[in-house]
Amino acid sequence: MKGAYSFFESASKAIRQNPTLSKLLVLTTVSSGGALAYADYNPFQGLITVSSGNNEGPKKKVVVLGTGWASTSFLKNLKSSSYDVQIVSPRNYFAFTPLLPSVTNGTVEARSIVEPIRNIVRKKRYNVDFKEAECYRIDPVNKKVFCRSIRPGNSGGPEEFTVDYDVLVMGMGAKVNTFNTPGVEEHAHFLKEVDDAQKLRRSIIDCYERANIPTVSEEERKRMMHFVVVGGGPTGVEYAAELHDLAFDDLSKLYPAVKDYLKITLLEAGDHILNMFDKRITEYAIEKFQRDGIDVKTGSMVTKLSDKDILTKDRKSGETISIPYGLVLWSTGVATRPVVRDFMNQIGQANRRVLATDEWLRVEGCNDVYALGDCATINQRKVMEDIASIFSKADKDNTGTLDLKEFKQVVSHICERYPQVELYLEKKKLKSFDTLLKNAQEDDKKQIDIETFKKALSEVDSQMKSLPATAQVAAQQGEYLAKCFNRMEQCEKNPEGPLRFRGEGRHRFHPFRYKHFGQFAPLGGEKTALQRPGDRVSIGTDIQWLWYSVYASKLVSWRTRMLVVSDWGRRFIFGRDSSKI
Amino acid sequence: MKGAYSFFESASKAIRQNPTLSKLLVLTTVSSGGALAYADYNPFQGLITVSSGNNEGPKKKVVVLGTGWASTSFLKNLKSSSYDVQIVSPRNYFAFTPLLPSVTNGTVEARSIVEPIRNIVRKKRYNVDFKEAECYRIDPVNKKVFCRSIRPGNSGGPEEFTVDYDVLVMGMGAKVNTFNTPGVEEHAHFLKEVDDAQKLRRSIIDCYERANIPTVSEEERKRMMHFVVVGGGPTGVEYAAELHDLAFDDLSKLYPAVKDYLKITLLEAGDHILNMFDKRITEYAIEKFQRDGIDVKTGSMVTKLSDKDILTKDRKSGETISIPYGLVLWSTGVATRPVVRDFMNQIGQANRRVLATDEWLRVEGCNDVYALGDCATINQRKVMEDIASIFSKADKDNTGTLDLKEFKQVVSHICERYPQVELYLEKKKLKSFDTLLKNAQEDDKKQIDIETFKKALSEVDSQMKSLPATAQVAAQQGEYLAKCFNRMEQCEKNPEGPLRFRGEGRHRFHPFRYKHFGQFAPLGGEKTALQRPGDRVSIGTDIQWLWYSVYASKLVSWRTRMLVVSDWGRRFIFGRDSSKI
Repeated sequence: MKGAYSFFESASKAIRQNPTLSKLLVLTTVSSGGALAYADYNPFQGLITVSSGNNEGPKKKVVVLGTGWASTSFLKNLKSSSYDVQIVSPRNYFAFTPLLPSVTNGTVEARSIVEPIRNIVRKKRYNVDFKEAECYRIDPVNKKVFCRSIRPGNSGGPEEFTVDYDVLVMGMGAKVNTFNTPGVEEHAHFLKEVDDAQKLRRSIIDCYERANIPTVSEEERKRMMHFVVVGGGPTGVEYAAELHDLAFDDLSKLYPAVKDYLKITLLEAGDHILNMFDKRITEYAIEKFQRDGIDVKTGSMVTKLSDKDILTKDRKSGETISIPYGLVLWSTGVATRPVVRDFMNQIGQANRRVLATDEWLRVEGCNDVYALGDCATINQRKVMEDIASIFSKADKDNTGTLDLKEFKQVVSHICERYPQVELYLEKKKLKSFDTLLKNAQEDDKKQIDIETFKKALSEVDSQMKSLPATAQVAAQQGEYLAKCFNRMEQCEKNPEGPLRFRGEGRHRFHPFRYKHFGQFAPLGGEKTALQRPGDRVSIGTDIQWLWYSVYASKLVSWRTRMLVVSDWGRRFIFGRDSSKI
Repeated sequence: MKGAYSFFESASKAIRQNPTLSKLLVLTTVSSGGALAYADYNPFQGLITVSSGNNEGPKKKVVVLGTGWASTSFLKNLKSSSYDVQIVSPRNYFAFTPLLPSVTNGTVEARSIVEPIRNIVRKKRYNVDFKEAECYRIDPVNKKVFCRSIRPGNSGGPEEFTVDYDVLVMGMGAKVNTFNTPGVEEHAHFLKEVDDAQKLRRSIIDCYERANIPTVSEEERKRMMHFVVVGGGPTGVEYAAELHDLAFDDLSKLYPAVKDYLKITLLEAGDHILNMFDKRITEYAIEKFQRDGIDVKTGSMVTKLSDKDILTKDRKSGETISIPYGLVLWSTGVATRPVVRDFMNQIGQANRRVLATDEWLRVEGCNDVYALGDCATINQRKVMEDIASIFSKADKDNTGTLDLKEFKQVVSHICERYPQVELYLEKKKLKSFDTLLKNAQEDDKKQIDIETFKKALSEVDSQMKSLPATAQVAAQQGEYLAKCFNRMEQCEKNPEGPLRFRGEGRHRFHPFRYKHFGQFAPLGGEKTALQRPGDRVSIGTDIQWLWYSVYASKLVSWRTRMLVVSDWGRRFIFGRDSSKI
């Protein structure tokens, strides 16, 4: 007995503590082929050093708000040991949100897509501590954030405390946008948090079970089995598709008495579903949904939600109809959180819809505060606003005209500082800035005056685009900011950014530039659409497999990666579970 | 693209529908060795025929209440096609409750230990339908059960309906026994349902996160990190042990600032923990808990629970103390549910503590109602009550004395009808009934009169034992009853049970006899104790592995079996998760 125990204990210890042994070869052979995951996992290397901020040496106190895509990506990429990091978030884990629709349908387990934030930061070189609390006020003057614990403390009420910062990183995301539609908060389901997905899942099974009760009237049964998705964006469309698959692949076999009552409706206020995607994808999706029997209604605005009926107004005819429903998923984009709104009022951004940062993710109107992810947008500088400064900066010899040599020296700085210039060139199919200037010149002079310069650039600002509120953007911003923080001292001394056109010298860092890798739109039935940059569109089952592999590779840890892959295997073999837990 | 889709679709279809292909070889290689699961899973063979009871032919309407161990075991083993089965339960799944303590600590995923009841019965030959509802009244006179849906229906209130039965099978289990201790319902955690386990899990992480908030006082932090388990039965002990493992193996590394505040206390009102186990196991457990720092207090009765303090009274000294706590798990046995209590009042069992059945699991005092599992106990017949009938039945020639030949003819019937006889013989180390009679005889007569007979049997009733409220008992009862139902017609014609001593002829069936295979007591740290019949005791890590394999083999479906085994693999590799979901 002793022998067996010793073996187990040492094996277990060895695997958990030895970095070499812990390179586990986890081979999961599922019937359809194999998925090989080489797990270089070493959870116990290094120890957390928790500090309350009073370390020796002049470490900067960085407070990070939130544990979503932006904050987690920042924390993962922060490598410098010269920071004391305090994380404040009501959620003690990071959730891989693109898989939330899969969680609602039991394709993926909730636990498989989350990773405790403490696990993510424990191997880091910086000092770090996490507080499970909500930030309810930011004081940018005294550099403090006010927090309250999400559970009652000593007094019975929430525990309140403040945290000082030298640098604040806001990554608390956004709330669901209800457009103040009455009844939505009370009656609709959302799909932003892991909790939401689990609730949604239980509610679907609930509707099936309730419809199966013998005394329920026909009409009521129809109502209960009517599932409505509001919002034709990628989340809404994916959810409608996944719901259809769940219902037809799995539930119809378990609930034969009620399966014919099922109806899925997708409501979209605009003219198209998936309107940020190429027309080909939209058309394919609509056609597929028609075949599947999912009712897509575009131009249909929801005006009210009662506990059993959804009131919609047709945007063209103005006609109002009331549709009985069993479950509504509300998925219509994001809005600013109250704490961010309050902060905006304090720093003079009261009139803006969303918190604005500059291209270096610094919040406009205050110092040492960065904002990334869904809680902010980048307020791009217009070329036309700065046109005089740009010209005079370029015109080194102050002649009032630019010659080619002078121009060559600033062109790369202009392109970097104002990304819309390149987008404009691309759109107009012009090879370079030179061509743009040449086209603006009436004769073939070598010198360019300010009027010509203005004329040439007059339309470039039309190409300014704000970034979508996606995980991809947030993750890139987090990584960008962490890399800036890692090289802060170095870049203070040797700035590497573009010329400051309105000031002196150069910017410390290159500005943030989003690199779009494409976007998936899962359409159900093992089919997914993908739009890559340059309007390249692919749809089909091979894209579904690409989706599987991209998502598997993007998952935050080897643990979640293995769990999700094995969840997919489970679903493939056993179907989806319908227990109401 | 089409090709890839077709391949996937056909492979998927083939695997899901073809019984031969679906014998999947699922090979999971984990670092420590391998676990081979040969999954003969075929979920789509046969279809459910849902019937509302108006089938052609004289099918008996069987209503089954509950989806726990007893009911599910009954439904799994029922093979005859001559029944219309209606299942009514507030839970649409079966839960493998012995693994609930593992769910609380994230060792096993909640979804892995549940199986939808519709999946369990869909391959059966009998007609079956499931209603997700609670039975709130049984009317044994009109043979009806009154049910209400657990969610609101048309009117906003719960949907109410009745179901008629020819035969009723009660397997609705029991509720937690709070002994009417004030505050327990409101403040304590339980561990009877999957929900309970999930709540408990979140609450533990909650306590850690709250203790980590900076403004919390030392005293308060100590309180929050004090976890109390009330009840030293196998569930309480296992939970305390698992909690210790979770805290020391995993959480201490993530919460270094609060880990030293952790305290686990186990309170038991009796003199010993694990009192149904052998003394050696109890001692081993106490010693191990001492080493682990788990505080075991026996003879300590809980008298009141407030939101922060637990009031205990020492049974010997009468001293009352108040202990601040962060979380209490209440695990002190079971009590009768209100619906069963109401039913007992109707059928003249008002004075009993628990619903009584005879040895054939038929509820005493009404017809065609069976009760099994935790909601009932078997009211064993005493030999001394029937002694005259037994004697006169044996005394075929009515001489007032028994000769050896007469006696031989009834002895096996007596032993079968009154199992206490055999237990008594075993205890007294007597070879057979004959010896018992011989010892009672004063001289060596061949004839036995009634007085000698009475004297011989006067003490056998002391060996009557009521069965424990365990999954093992419930499952065996369910299987027993199903087998009776399967052979109902056959046994009506050719009864196979023992002689009816008080009536004419024979009983239709052999009475239910519980076969004890032993009981596990997991003690944490990969150590488990096992007590097998005959007081054979084993403790250690090899027993933990036996525990793994027994539980894996007992799981209700290949799906749950594979999931649980892979959960164990995951935990072994990655440790337990601490995200609060």
